[in-house]
Amino acid sequence: MKNGKSDRRSFLTAGAGAAIGALAAPAIAKAQTGLNWRMVTSWPRNSPGPGWTAQRLADKITRMSGGELTVTLHAAGEMVPPLEVFDAVGQGTADMAHTASLFWSGKAPAAALFTAGPFGLTAVEHNAWIYHGGGQALWDRLYEPFGIKPLMAGNTGMQMGGWFKKEINSLDDLVGLKQRMPGLGGAILSKLGGTPVTLPPGEIFGALQSGLVDGTEFLGPWSDSAFGFYRVAPYYYWPGYHEPNGTGECLINAERFAALPENLKEIVTTACAAENSISLAESEWHNAEALKKLVEERGVKLRAWPEDILAAAREAAGEVLDELAAKDALSGEIVASFRAARDQAESWGRVGYESFYKARGAA
Amino acid sequence: MKNGKSDRRSFLTAGAGAAIGALAAPAIAKAQTGLNWRMVTSWPRNSPGPGWTAQRLADKITRMSGGELTVTLHAAGEMVPPLEVFDAVGQGTADMAHTASLFWSGKAPAAALFTAGPFGLTAVEHNAWIYHGGGQALWDRLYEPFGIKPLMAGNTGMQMGGWFKKEINSLDDLVGLKQRMPGLGGAILSKLGGTPVTLPPGEIFGALQSGLVDGTEFLGPWSDSAFGFYRVAPYYYWPGYHEPNGTGECLINAERFAALPENLKEIVTTACAAENSISLAESEWHNAEALKKLVEERGVKLRAWPEDILAAAREAAGEVLDELAAKDALSGEIVASFRAARDQAESWGRVGYESFYKARGAA
Repeated sequence: MKNGKSDRRSFLTAGAGAAIGALAAPAIAKAQTGLNWRMVTSWPRNSPGPGWTAQRLADKITRMSGGELTVTLHAAGEMVPPLEVFDAVGQGTADMAHTASLFWSGKAPAAALFTAGPFGLTAVEHNAWIYHGGGQALWDRLYEPFGIKPLMAGNTGMQMGGWFKKEINSLDDLVGLKQRMPGLGGAILSKLGGTPVTLPPGEIFGALQSGLVDGTEFLGPWSDSAFGFYRVAPYYYWPGYHEPNGTGECLINAERFAALPENLKEIVTTACAAENSISLAESEWHNAEALKKLVEERGVKLRAWPEDILAAAREAAGEVLDELAAKDALSGEIVASFRAARDQAESWGRVGYESFYKARGAA
Repeated sequence: MKNGKSDRRSFLTAGAGAAIGALAAPAIAKAQTGLNWRMVTSWPRNSPGPGWTAQRLADKITRMSGGELTVTLHAAGEMVPPLEVFDAVGQGTADMAHTASLFWSGKAPAAALFTAGPFGLTAVEHNAWIYHGGGQALWDRLYEPFGIKPLMAGNTGMQMGGWFKKEINSLDDLVGLKQRMPGLGGAILSKLGGTPVTLPPGEIFGALQSGLVDGTEFLGPWSDSAFGFYRVAPYYYWPGYHEPNGTGECLINAERFAALPENLKEIVTTACAAENSISLAESEWHNAEALKKLVEERGVKLRAWPEDILAAAREAAGEVLDELAAKDALSGEIVASFRAARDQAESWGRVGYESFYKARGAA
């Protein structure tokens, strides 16, 4: 490991015995001491969606290992600030983190694609790319210089296009529009003539209310409802072409991961894989529930993106990916692999899924 | 447990020490003996899709437990015939099984809905219903009289509508048509005037070739390709409205599951949850790959179901669910819960997903 400490004793704690005692006693005699890992996150404690995933991940690893590996969660700011968890894991201050790869684009340009790419992959297609299409190996190479092992852990599912104070009827209406839109989506918006603004979640509602921004993207109906955007920006656009999924990221100090016994390695990777079904299902359940409530009880006006905006955004997304691919050799490899996965997924998505949603919905 | 043996010694084996030795040695001292469980399956050994899931499940539990619980897989027919695994687990001959709930409709009428329902839930929506929408509690109640604990384990994803020797242009073309179509899909086909035929997978190709049947449903492009149906029935219809997902089922002897220490319970349930992302992603990857090959290299003719067939099938599916709900009180509860989950999912499916597939595919 290049950036980390290698003192394994630092994460072997004397107090682990008590933690083991608190768990239900396995039938078979267990070791009396265990590892104690600190997991930092980029989310407030117990925040719905990613915050729940992080806590389940810590709890599952602890319970499955019967106390061999106790993971204690430190939410955003409790040990390190939310956007310093990457460095904390690389340097070994924390053993692992739950976060999202799009935050690390400044360190590794292609990192954002491991959260989602514009006009890219749905959650299940993203899992297919990472697990079965070569994505994991590229992600490992991207973070290897930082001494970090990444794993997918949870997914917030399909996103919406965002909230707007006024109706958007054509590409012309986007010109000059100020929208909270970070990352690759923001780069696309710039190409369309809009003005992307970066704002932390807690400041979006006020910025919409004061007119500092005209619109905002965020996540899906579930998370968006909690922020009350509908009260000041009632037009809710779909689809969320800029981020068709929201892959959660588990970061592990690479040296400490490599030093784990095989059973604990399998426990950590399997706990992450389990979140990729449990948390995605959770987001989908609550998104579906929240969308109905927004429309039926909150008077939200659902609007499809006009076709000229979608066409221009598709073209702009291609340019954004080209620019990303040109940054360095590994970025180029990652963009090529991502595009191949998307191209392969496209026909099956239309034939298998688009047609089913349409047939079911016509009832 | 009502139908099982309670002799726990029968699954404590003397030979477990050797199995533990074969695993990478954990850093912390392990117990020298462990449980040894037999998993029976309804699939041929190593058959792509469900067979791979069953093997990964056994391997993951064994590795995560570090030898505390060694699971040995006995594929279809090796210990019990494929459709007797339910009884084997209930009676305790086997400790667990990997199979599909639709096989048990004769024992518990609503069982098929825990695989998939017509015009029902996609894989992710099915996970949402089971994990977060009350589905698991109903499934537990359905199998409780048999002494069996069910868990979702793996998913073959969206299915296709099936292979036909001739083009089907309207509802009239279905009348009298003989199609291999089991379960609830077969009941729908009957209502449309077709003739459902039940055939085991190995006999379908010959039946198509000889003209015994005019068409067949099976799974998705990946599995279907291996059987070569395209060589005798080149028209491939979509969507697979009769089974919009294929949930795999892990059955566990309820008494033995209840007796597991907490860490092993968590290991078994988490291994199943992990398969719900890993195997679904695997099916989606290979389905997308296979669909391209079928169209580009095999000359397969993709056809959308005519709208009058979809409309009639939707109505028939409603009648089939009504009939199922009328069988007994628990079937009624399960159908109501399933329908509520589907109704909730519908708008979000169209707004979030259908629109995204369309926007991406138009590129």
